[in-house]
Amino acid sequence: MIIDRLYADIHQKSTVCVGLDTKLSFLPSAIAERPGTPGEKILRFNRAVVDATADLAGCFKVQIACYEALGLDGLLAYAKTLAYVREKGSVVIADVKRGDISSTAAQYAKGHFTGDFEADFITVNAYMGEDAVSPYYEYLQKSEKGLFVLVKTSNPSGVDLQDMELQKTGEPVYMQMARRVEAWGQAFVGGCGLSSIGAVTGCTYPEQFAAIHAAMPHGFFLIPGYGAQGGTGKDVAAFFKSGLCGVVNSSRGLLTAHKGKSEGADFADCTRAAVQAMKEDIGQWL
Amino acid sequence: MIIDRLYADIHQKSTVCVGLDTKLSFLPSAIAERPGTPGEKILRFNRAVVDATADLAGCFKVQIACYEALGLDGLLAYAKTLAYVREKGSVVIADVKRGDISSTAAQYAKGHFTGDFEADFITVNAYMGEDAVSPYYEYLQKSEKGLFVLVKTSNPSGVDLQDMELQKTGEPVYMQMARRVEAWGQAFVGGCGLSSIGAVTGCTYPEQFAAIHAAMPHGFFLIPGYGAQGGTGKDVAAFFKSGLCGVVNSSRGLLTAHKGKSEGADFADCTRAAVQAMKEDIGQWL
Repeated sequence: MIIDRLYADIHQKSTVCVGLDTKLSFLPSAIAERPGTPGEKILRFNRAVVDATADLAGCFKVQIACYEALGLDGLLAYAKTLAYVREKGSVVIADVKRGDISSTAAQYAKGHFTGDFEADFITVNAYMGEDAVSPYYEYLQKSEKGLFVLVKTSNPSGVDLQDMELQKTGEPVYMQMARRVEAWGQAFVGGCGLSSIGAVTGCTYPEQFAAIHAAMPHGFFLIPGYGAQGGTGKDVAAFFKSGLCGVVNSSRGLLTAHKGKSEGADFADCTRAAVQAMKEDIGQWL
Repeated sequence: MIIDRLYADIHQKSTVCVGLDTKLSFLPSAIAERPGTPGEKILRFNRAVVDATADLAGCFKVQIACYEALGLDGLLAYAKTLAYVREKGSVVIADVKRGDISSTAAQYAKGHFTGDFEADFITVNAYMGEDAVSPYYEYLQKSEKGLFVLVKTSNPSGVDLQDMELQKTGEPVYMQMARRVEAWGQAFVGGCGLSSIGAVTGCTYPEQFAAIHAAMPHGFFLIPGYGAQGGTGKDVAAFFKSGLCGVVNSSRGLLTAHKGKSEGADFADCTRAAVQAMKEDIGQWL
């Protein structure tokens, strides 16, 4: 199970997930001013970041929206970024939040677990129910792949739907989703005791995480919201009271660490230092 | 507002939305056996279908999953398919079901409303709330674009989450979503009285549509589920009791209409006949 590999990596390296949500505005002069397409420049940046951080980061996450925004040129950079992370031996999460069903989801599974866009994990939106998840099962079983299903997101309007309380249980919608994800993941529990079907749960609502975690004893969590989005090391460490069971993503805070310090070829040293600082910020509370 | 253009097109042509969810297995020998990449073959097929049906179809919908499954080659075919439909003067809906927030959703908006992948409408998943919708508003206003937000889907496990009843209102989750979509769409109501923010509502649950429609007086609906998925003309016509307020998508049923009849270059005549039959099947109940 891929979850055993990720679990080993976070213990060996850190719970830091470096988010390659790379935008052109992030690039230092040393990269922005060299010739090339936008996608080529972003790929150069990403490779430098991966080279500088792969020994410290538990895994990488690539936000496909930043690449779709640049059209075909961007998606070529996306494909090559995923391949580069995998070549380096790190686990890569494709943050695609795909949410469709049956034969359509099977197409997404083929698209993101094989070929040009092959990733180790993808993020999934299950508003459409288990039909949005089950087409991936064969890849989880046979090809060592994994999913993170959106449960409770860290954005302000996440409450619009996710926090509405259900009549049957008195619990909010996101708890229903958490219980469904736990049930779907039962068949994919690895040797580490956690499932290759995990959950996305924002770290800006730490008080709600205890209930989610209780409903998901086999849950492994992808936790966005650290740094630029307001989450602190102390918030995050509260998730790990009973052992490491997730990775904490930071994107903008890490990728723009060179701003005001270096526009030169050594920019990735700043990202490395920021990853190290994030690792220590979380670690001090564990 | 783009909704006025689509509204005029469905009145002039039909409520049929031709779904270009093209898979390699759909291709007739005349296309499958010619040289070319998978993406090139699919593009040839799509162009022939568009040529044969653009005067009958109210609009076209392109399911991006089928193209992502083929990697970069597939996405080149996707881009060229969208461009071809737009060149022909028809409205094209990109069925991407993207669902992300704030700056990430802004990247999706740029990606799918400008550049290589420019479409007229996109489908959106708003499990994350209004933050998953608001980044598109500027395009709706300035660039004549539109959205269809998932409200009630036609797949069996759509009930996993969407049909849970809420404590506050006693209504199912999908009704909460319908009310939110109506509220978000208020600012984008066109001259036709309907909004450029519409809803995806499957036609296999016609009894639930009356409540959704009552909650969305400005709603325009993208209705999947016809044909291969079980919906009939009578089911669909029930949606249009108070006037045409939606398009009905069929994909597999239309794209494979040549199977068992023609593997030759005239395959698209079969699709044309199937579109005509679907138009009449729905029309007889109006």
